[in-house]
Order: sequence, then C-alpha cells, then structure tokens
Amino acid sequence: MTVRVGIVGASGYTGAELVRLVVGHPELQLEYVGAREKAGQRLGDVLPATEGIASLCDRRLEAFEPQSAGELAARVEVVFTALPHAASARAGQALLEAGIRVVDLSADFRLTSAAVYEKWYGEHPAKALLGRAVYGLPELHRAELHDARLIAAPGCYPTSSILPLAPLLSAGLVEPSGLVIDSKSGVSGAGRSAAPNTHFPETSEGMRAYKVAGTHRHLPEIEQELSRAAKLPVTVVFTPHLAPFSRGILTTAYARAMRGTTAEQCREAAREQYREGLVTVLGEGRVPDTLWVRGSARAHVAYALDERAGVVVAMCAIDNLAKGASAQAIQALNVCLGHPDGLGLPQVGAFP
Amino acid sequence: MTVRVGIVGASGYTGAELVRLVVGHPELQLEYVGAREKAGQRLGDVLPATEGIASLCDRRLEAFEPQSAGELAARVEVVFTALPHAASARAGQALLEAGIRVVDLSADFRLTSAAVYEKWYGEHPAKALLGRAVYGLPELHRAELHDARLIAAPGCYPTSSILPLAPLLSAGLVEPSGLVIDSKSGVSGAGRSAAPNTHFPETSEGMRAYKVAGTHRHLPEIEQELSRAAKLPVTVVFTPHLAPFSRGILTTAYARAMRGTTAEQCREAAREQYREGLVTVLGEGRVPDTLWVRGSARAHVAYALDERAGVVVAMCAIDNLAKGASAQAIQALNVCLGHPDGLGLPQVGAFP
Amino acid sequence: MTVRVGIVGASGYTGAELVRLVVGHPELQLEYVGAREKAGQRLGDVLPATEGIASLCDRRLEAFEPQSAGELAARVEVVFTALPHAASARAGQALLEAGIRVVDLSADFRLTSAAVYEKWYGEHPAKALLGRAVYGLPELHRAELHDARLIAAPGCYPTSSILPLAPLLSAGLVEPSGLVIDSKSGVSGAGRSAAPNTHFPETSEGMRAYKVAGTHRHLPEIEQELSRAAKLPVTVVFTPHLAPFSRGILTTAYARAMRGTTAEQCREAAREQYREGLVTVLGEGRVPDTLWVRGSARAHVAYALDERAGVVVAMCAIDNLAKGASAQAIQALNVCLGHPDGLGLPQVGAFP
Amino acid sequence: MTVRVGIVGASGYTGAELVRLVVGHPELQLEYVGAREKAGQRLGDVLPATEGIASLCDRRLEAFEPQSAGELAARVEVVFTALPHAASARAGQALLEAGIRVVDLSADFRLTSAAVYEKWYGEHPAKALLGRAVYGLPELHRAELHDARLIAAPGCYPTSSILPLAPLLSAGLVEPSGLVIDSKSGVSGAGRSAAPNTHFPETSEGMRAYKVAGTHRHLPEIEQELSRAAKLPVTVVFTPHLAPFSRGILTTAYARAMRGTTAEQCREAAREQYREGLVTVLGEGRVPDTLWVRGSARAHVAYALDERAGVVVAMCAIDNLAKGASAQAIQALNVCLGHPDGLGLPQVGAFP
Repeated sequence: MTVRVGIVGASGYTGAELVRLVVGHPELQLEYVGAREKAGQRLGDVLPATEGIASLCDRRLEAFEPQSAGELAARVEVVFTALPHAASARAGQALLEAGIRVVDLSADFRLTSAAVYEKWYGEHPAKALLGRAVYGLPELHRAELHDARLIAAPGCYPTSSILPLAPLLSAGLVEPSGLVIDSKSGVSGAGRSAAPNTHFPETSEGMRAYKVAGTHRHLPEIEQELSRAAKLPVTVVFTPHLAPFSRGILTTAYARAMRGTTAEQCREAAREQYREGLVTVLGEGRVPDTLWVRGSARAHVAYALDERAGVVVAMCAIDNLAKGASAQAIQALNVCLGHPDGLGLPQVGAFP
Repeated sequence: MTVRVGIVGASGYTGAELVRLVVGHPELQLEYVGAREKAGQRLGDVLPATEGIASLCDRRLEAFEPQSAGELAARVEVVFTALPHAASARAGQALLEAGIRVVDLSADFRLTSAAVYEKWYGEHPAKALLGRAVYGLPELHRAELHDARLIAAPGCYPTSSILPLAPLLSAGLVEPSGLVIDSKSGVSGAGRSAAPNTHFPETSEGMRAYKVAGTHRHLPEIEQELSRAAKLPVTVVFTPHLAPFSRGILTTAYARAMRGTTAEQCREAAREQYREGLVTVLGEGRVPDTLWVRGSARAHVAYALDERAGVVVAMCAIDNLAKGASAQAIQALNVCLGHPDGLGLPQVGAFP
Repeated sequence: MTVRVGIVGASGYTGAELVRLVVGHPELQLEYVGAREKAGQRLGDVLPATEGIASLCDRRLEAFEPQSAGELAARVEVVFTALPHAASARAGQALLEAGIRVVDLSADFRLTSAAVYEKWYGEHPAKALLGRAVYGLPELHRAELHDARLIAAPGCYPTSSILPLAPLLSAGLVEPSGLVIDSKSGVSGAGRSAAPNTHFPETSEGMRAYKVAGTHRHLPEIEQELSRAAKLPVTVVFTPHLAPFSRGILTTAYARAMRGTTAEQCREAAREQYREGLVTVLGEGRVPDTLWVRGSARAHVAYALDERAGVVVAMCAIDNLAKGASAQAIQALNVCLGHPDGLGLPQVGAFP
Repeated sequence: MTVRVGIVGASGYTGAELVRLVVGHPELQLEYVGAREKAGQRLGDVLPATEGIASLCDRRLEAFEPQSAGELAARVEVVFTALPHAASARAGQALLEAGIRVVDLSADFRLTSAAVYEKWYGEHPAKALLGRAVYGLPELHRAELHDARLIAAPGCYPTSSILPLAPLLSAGLVEPSGLVIDSKSGVSGAGRSAAPNTHFPETSEGMRAYKVAGTHRHLPEIEQELSRAAKLPVTVVFTPHLAPFSRGILTTAYARAMRGTTAEQCREAAREQYREGLVTVLGEGRVPDTLWVRGSARAHVAYALDERAGVVVAMCAIDNLAKGASAQAIQALNVCLGHPDGLGLPQVGAFP
C-alpha cells in the first residue's frame, strides 16, 4: 500500500528533486505540494520539468502554514520539509504534533546540541525535538531510523565528508586529529535564489573557496558525526569551494595514517561499514567523479595512501541534491518504513 | 511478464543511456550487454555509474558477432543495436533472422530509400530490410509500431526538427517551402570518442556551426519525415551547431505562415497531434529549454508568430540521448509491445 | 600625446572591459572612473581583476551626476558612458555640453528615429542629439566617425548581425526580404545583475530562445543598418538565444541567394567591405567560433551557399563585450582620433 | 631596440599563449614560429585566433630540428621552447650552443637534480645544463635571472603551490612538515591533445582528483622550491584535481601554524616577499578566484587562520597558461633583460 506524502518547499532545488524522485517511487504517492512565496502558482510554471504530465503540472502550490498542519493529516502520512532553517523547525513541529511523520531537509534537526545550533543558526524554535530526531544517514544510523517520526536529512557537505572518513575513524586506521577536508561543490548547492556569486558569468571559469577557516555552518554537523565515529571529540579543518558545475560534491579528505595502515585496509573498513546502503567503495587505483553519480542516490568513495607523507587521501563523490539531500531523505524514509534502502531511487547516474 | 533484452554497443553514450533506462524499467530485464572494441571489460570499468550495483558492475561486456546471433535468441527477445552505421545493419539483420526483435539506434534503417542511404552513407548492407523497418517516432508512426519486428529509432536532430514542424505541415498552417532549421546540440551528440573538436578547452566558451549548407547526414531523414507530413517533397535548410553543454538539443525552426495562421492554431495542431505520446506543447509566451528535459523522455515544443515577417518560429527542446535516442527507442518498444508510451521512462527532467 | 579618458558605469561588464582595454592602450590614459550605485567603493573591491595594480585598485569609484559634467571637462577629453538607457542619454548630453567627447555604449544614440526609439525604450531624454550621433561601426561608418563628438557604440547582437549581412545586401547578392537571423549569446550579454534566468544552475546545461518573434530591442537597430546597406526598408526575423558560456555571440543568418550568387562572391563582397577595420573573412569551408575571438577586438565572418535551397548561410562570431561593445567603442574612438582601427586593442583572442 | 624571438612548439596551448603575448609586447618581435607535427601548416589554420592579422595568419609553421639551430641564430636572439620533455631539452641544448638565449616551458630544466629528474621523467638528455638553468619564478629567483642564458619556466601547479607557501616557510610562520596542497586545475592544463578524460561530456559536470598520493610529476618541483624556502627538506601531500573550466588553477594549501602566527603575519610576509613582481596579496576576508586572473600575468594569494585547528589556509589563483606558463616565461625574460616584470603583459584579467 502506497504511502501518501507531501512536500513543503517544493519550488527550491531540493524540493524539485523530491518531486522528481517521489514521482518515480513505486510506494510513495505525491498528495501535497506546498510552498511559501510561490504559493498559488502552477507547478508547471515553477518547475517546467513537470509540464505535460497531467497529474502534476496543473496543480497549484498550496500555501503552507504551520497552523494548518492538522488538516494535512487527513491527506498525507509523511511530509518532507525543505524550508529555510527555523521555518523548517516550526513546520516540522506542527506536522509532528498533527501526527505526521516528518523528514526534514533543513539544518534544524541535525545537531543534537541546542547550544551548538544556537551558536551557528540562532535560537532554536523547537529545542525539545532535538533529542527525538534521527540523523538520516542510513549507513551510520540504520537502527535508529526504523519507524522514526522525525528524520533529519544530512547536509550535502557533511554527507560527502562523513562517508569517506567515518569508517577509518571507527576502525582506528587514522588519527582523529589533524583532519583536513577540502570539498568542491557544484553551484546548485547554493540554492535557487539568484545572487551575484552564483550569476553565470561570475561562476563559469571561476573556482574559489568560501567560508574558509572554520566558518561554514556544516562544520559542527561534520564534527558531530565524526566524533561519534571516533568515539572522541574531533576537530576538522573544512574548506568548501564553489566550482563551475551544477550538481555534485567532490570531497578530498586528508588524515594521518596510523602506523601500518594500508589503503586496502581503508577500503575493507568502508566495505564492511557499507555492506548495506548506497555507498560504493571503488577499487584500487580508482577515483570518484561527480560525473558518475549525477542524478543517482549512490555515493562513491575511494582511498589512497601517500606513503612518503603517511597520509590517507579519502575521496567521496555524491550528487549534492540526490545522495546529498533528497534521495538520501527518501532512502532514510525507505529504511524507516522497512523497505530496502534503494527502493524507487535511481542508482545508475545519468551519464554523461 | 518481463521481456528479456540485450544491448549491443553498450559502451557508447546511447548504450549507457539504454543501460540506465532499461534498469529502471519495470517490464524489461537486461540480460545481455555486448560491445565490440571493449568486449571483455567489466561494465563497472566502462560505465562507472554502474559501480556498486551488484547485478551490473561485475558483468563483462560480451563480444558481439553477427554470426552468433542465433545463440542470443535463447537469452533475449529484443535487442537494442547501437553500433556505427553499416555494422548496425549487419547486426540487425542477423538478429532478425535469429527471430529477435530489433530496435536499432543507428541511421541504418531510418531512410526508406536505399538510393538516398547510399548517397549519404555508402552501400547499404541489408537493403531488403529497408521496407520492413518502422520509423520509431511513436507520435507519428503509432499504428505501424504495433508488434513491429524492426524499429529504427530516429536521430536526435530529426526528432527535434520533425516534432515541432510536422503538425504545422500536416495542418497546412505553414508553407512547405523555405523552411529553415537551426539546431543547437550539446556535445554528447558527437559520441563518446574523444576528438579535437570535442576536447573540453576547445568546446567550453565555443559556439559554432558545422556541416552547414546541406551537408549533415540527418538532413535526408528530416526531409523524409517532413515530406510525409506535408504530403509533398520538402527541402529544408538545416544548420547544426555545437554548443558548450553535454545533453540536449534546442531546435529553432522558421516557416512562412499561411495567410491567417495564428500561434494558437499552431499550438492546437500540435496538441491534437500529440494527444498521445511524450510531447508537451507549451502555452503562449513559453519557450522550451534543454534544462527542463534533461534526463527526460519528453520533448517540449512551443510556437510564436512573427506577424511583421509572417513567419512562425517553432521551437523544440529534447534530451538528445533520451527523447533523441535511447528513451525514444524504449518508448517505441513500449508502443510495439502494447504498453503506454511512457512506461518506465523518466518524464520529469532532473532539474537543475 | 595621450588622451585622458573617463568611464561612467565602470562596475558593469562593459565598464570592466573598458577598464581592461583602456589600461592596455598606449594612447589613452584612464583619469576617471565613475559609477552610480557603487560610487565610493574601491575599484579593487568592485573589479578584483585590478587588485595589486597600484594605480588602479585603490581608486574609489566617483559618483557621477550629469550636473557635475563641467568639472570633468578639466580632467578628461573623452568619456565612455555605459549606463542603462535614458540615464546614458542624460549623461551624454551633459558631457557633450561640457565640451567632452562622448562614446556611449547604451542604446540611446544608436537609432536615428526618435519615434522608433520611443516605441522600444520610451521617451528619449535628448532627442535633439539623435541626428548628431554617429553609429560607431567603423567598418560601415568610417567617414562619419572622423572627429565625431558623439559616437553610439553598436549593440552586440546588431554587430554580429550587420557585419555578415551588410556586404551581401550592399552588393545585391541576396534578397532583402525573408532574412532570418538566429543568434546565440553568452550570458555576459545579460549584464552583471544577478537574475533567476542567469543563475548558474539555470543556465548551465540550458539552451533557450528568448524575446522571440520580433520582440527584442536590438531588432530596430539591426533593421536600420541593414536597410541602409540594402538601400530599401528591410524586415528581419530575429531570434536571440542564451547559451551556457560567458563571452561571445555566434550569429547564423539565412538569406535567399539571388540567381547565380556563389559563396565566393559573398566572401569577395565582405573582403572588399572589410579591407579596413577588424573583420576577418574566413576562407571556404571555414566556420567562425566564439572560442577564437574571446577577448579580441576582431569579428570573424564566413559564408556558405545551400544550393539545393538557394540560401546563403552567413555566420559571424564576436566577443560580445569586445567587438560587440567595449573594444568596438575604442576602435570607433581610434578612427575618430585618426589612429589605426586596432591601435592598442587585442586582436589575437585568448585561446583557449 | 626590440628583441627578435622565436617559439618552438607554437601549436600547443602554451605556444598559442606565447603568440598572443609576444604579439602584444612592445619590446619583443616574433620572428620565428616552429613546430614538429604541424610543421608546414598555416598559423591561421592551427590557431584561428590569428586569422585576419596579415603578419601572422599566413605564415607557415617551420619544421624545427635541433641540428638547424645554427641557422636560427641569424634570425632570433631568444627562443621559447614548448615541446614535450626530453625533446625540449634537446632543442634547448642545440639553441644554447648556437648562442641563442632559451626560455624553456617544459619540465626539462626545472629540477636541479639529475637523479630526481630521471626518477620522474627518465634519462635526461642534457644533464650538464641542469646546473646552468635558472628557475624562472622571478619573485623568488630575481637575482639569478639577470642575463640568464637558460631559463626554466615553472610548472603551473608548482607556481600556484610555491607562491602562497614560500613566504610562510621562509618566515618560519608555519611548520615545514605536514603540508597539504589541494589544487584544482582547469582542463587546458592537460594540453591540446584530445583524450577520453578531457572529452567535453566526460569533463563538464565532472570533478575528480587524479594522480593522487604522491604520483604527479610536479611534486618534486614543488618540494625542491619549498625546501629552498624552508631551508630544510620538505615533504608535501599534493593532490591535483581536474575541474570543468578551461583556464586557471586554484590551490588551497594547509600548513600547521607556529604558535602565535596570525593571518596578518602571513599577509605581511607575502607582501614583503612580493614587493616586486606580479603577485597580489589580497586583504583580510578576501579569497582568490580563477575568474579574476583569467588572461592575466598576475597571481592572487590570500591567507586565513583556522584558530581552532591551528592551521593556516593559504590560497592562490593563477591562469595556468599565463602566470602558470607563458606569461611567467615572458616575465622571467623581462627580468633577464632588465625590464620591469610586467612589461607588455596583461595584468588586468579579462573579466568575466
């Protein structure tokens, strides 16, 4: 029996990707599409990719207000919330109280500490829920996800940073100090709002870091999960970069190898960790490429050992909107509902 | 009951797209992947997008030889052939003789006239089959496709040129003479072989025409189908262009309006023609964009009338590898087998 | 003796390109950089490409007000105005009255008819000047440019449309009716202001027409100059397209050949017209490519004849910010001042 | 009095850039353009960016053979050699023996140790010259460059790696161990030969590392110069990446800060080191972007301190073909000849 779902914030990029993926999912039925600023508009006008599909394009985006969450309960069992932070928390709280399962794609429920949240985002509007949310990285939080009522879909940079490093830290193959994470993101990660720094002529042929030296909001999320893997507090240097492509993140991470660690041991630890889930561990001599996971729910990770320097180079490629956001949100819901991780999700990237 | 299919030429771009689409199709089962030069290689090495999917990535590409088509008959009911011209015809002939249904993605079975074929491609290796092939544009050849044994999937430029113009010619809304077709293609249309003119630094920031003034091989295919729609011989000016993106074709066609023709009449004619199938007719004031059909099996068409000049501007956007090749091949097979056109095919583009 | 120049509107793309080109010009000295919204900012902050060049980066953009034009007269002899339309006319008028030579890069002085201007842009703020401005396409208006006080630098689409067609119309090689102009522009042509349709993820992998069917403001400018070349009123179909690259315009134009016209005659007519100036006529079988004129003041044109259809395909590639705007403005000033066209201008494109 | 120069290897990207820059240089006169495989071809056919420039485009590329270097001595005083390694050394040796000053853009004369060269490139064909070559990074080897007969223009990755780090190591602001260098290169760095990994559809939307973990040939060159700066042997982890743009390298380097080191101290050290030359040190809060140095001879560097981790993030953007190759070669020649570093070189990037 299919599950009726809604999307709040359908006009942004993660919302658009949710529409694409839910429509292709055999066990999910899209019953509700809500928005804030674009409420009232035809979905086909907001997302022309839906034009011509009778059941989609002529729908109007419904105005979502937290106070009307109760009425939604009659229509849907699950809602994906993809709103800016704080707004998403308020929406999630109202939906949960109305008995609706929530998969939130904002940062609002990812951090377990209200104090840390406040430092990076300001006052949390629904602190009490922090302890109830499950971090929706199924490869690392599988058991907690079963029948979870509130799932916090991970950020894109954290997904690409945690996946390659967590198995090494859990297995004690690398030192937990001195970690350097250098990530290169496509521009869709900046969202759908036009801005000078994402204007085509200022992005094409441009390559730049931003929010360097510990100032990006995804940092605490990365450290939270890596500390959990390492079982001790971990501090990382994290540098996000904007690169001239649309979809994808490539993360290149550097960790000091413990004495005797080999690249094959790293691959083994990752294969073991990722026996279940949607993470591919590439073989010796292979490197991940965002090109190969475009549109796919899978992550590709790979490892190399720089013997001269005693450093493990851990790499990961994801589609930031898929495994880094919407596909992972559905994967987490799949696990929550008892389905296989990849049910209904594209796993072969659209190459080229 | 699912149909077992094979792909010959799985390592090229149309082959890769077939793999992606067949894997996602509920009624097709991928039983065979063959290649010529890359025979013997792991599919995961040739198409890393399949890495990590146990049932796919560790397969070896099988060496396809026409003489061994008979053995294939025990394994598959349908084969998609995606080889260079002439080689594809030989493969198709052998497969047909072995009782296998063939959907050919080369140019070999698209032209009804052996003389025209010979002029553009050289001697045809299987002339007798030309009369038996069905041109696999379901929106225009629906009836013939039912249970067809040999389907010629249309070229990418022809698909994007025929779809916007055929309804206007059929309905007598534009003059059949003086047609100008200006097409802009992404670089994947040039195939997977590296060449100087598709080397990244010589393509990025480049925009150029090629094979101008009646010298591109897709010209006779366009004229064949437009002549069929107009019910008289049609000559077109066709200019293909290479533009710096990967996937998609945008065609802008110019036709002299018959006295009294309106843009709305053009839209009506197209809506009527495309009641069935995977063509979206955009409303007044809208224009198609390759961005909105990326990865999708749908075409978007739109019309505008330049009243001062008395010219209809007919536009069409497709994904050259999807509606322009592999997805259309599967759509044609769907119709052939009695399924809805869009069964198992992505219809919402992966935006952005 | 060098000429002291100013730039009003230095923070936009044409302004930035003027800065680059004036700095490299041996006979021009940049004395003044003015702006409106960004007045007061460091040039190095607005145009980081100037950072580190002591004489440039620490200057502040001066607030330009038409009423203070008089003070400027003591500092500069020539001002390039690159403001939005209407504002540019007001600036130009004030500067002229202060005795300063003006090269205007807006649309304000390009049209000779105030009525036509009004139809497309609204009331003209300085109608009396229309008759005094010289259209700054040196290859076609050389004599008028000598010592001109007010030069209207042509638009980018018009430059790429007029250059390939004017010689054919002047020489009577093509019919003046039925002209189709299909132009593909890089995104910098849309200016520096961020907007949804130029947001990187909505432009990359996108290809689309806009302002189709006689609705783009450059249309009257194109028709004005082609009518002048043809010596009778010319109506054209003009379709601008946005393509995913930064700099350049490729125009593909279609004209019905007069009986007996050959491609070589077209090349000859163009070579004759462009003996002086910065237009390269490519030889038989060659096609222009925006890649080859990136950063260069030159235009490349080429011709092919489609004999079956009796149509000349006339092509032109320019850098929209260089030959299509700022370099051409300086070329016009060069001619105005008695210098060779190309003095101080880059003529070898930055390839790749 | 202008110096007559020749270019051997004019058909590649560094050769093309040399043509562009030499043509624009007031004190250099291009007398000779030589090539190997493309000898005999018109320069306009090989580099269409020169088409229409009478003095350039109709020249034929001359066949360069080391044994005919003597004849060249009558025509040129300086030759830029831009051939593959080993071939370049043989050419350089012959030219030097003929009394011609040589600026070599290959890797052949960059390493001071023949043993190290042999490990990475094979037997050196002119070992005796290694001790006579000057490493052509003017900001670090100014004194040696004066009147040098053999200049080894640095590699692109080394330039972008050495410039941000050398001042920190010289000043003792960072630890010389544990250095991580993560570089992102545009595709022109791979040269002009088409290859599968630089085919447009396999590069666009792709982001990937290559030659990871100490396997890239530029590694010893980086370590040689950083060791010189640190005055002790330095080992680095270096990861090159291919990103989907044409020109430019962005390097993000990570170094452990000495106790008390501040970002401002790093900037001060760099400003001091780069008082002369073409390196811009960006102010606090600024980051370099390849977009801002496109086509320019300048490098932009910037520094940030991650206080939590005690790590300096040192960043550098260059145009790989300009400051990373050809413009730097001319800069070195300028210094060699007693000119200012930037004479005749574009210092304002072509933005956007």
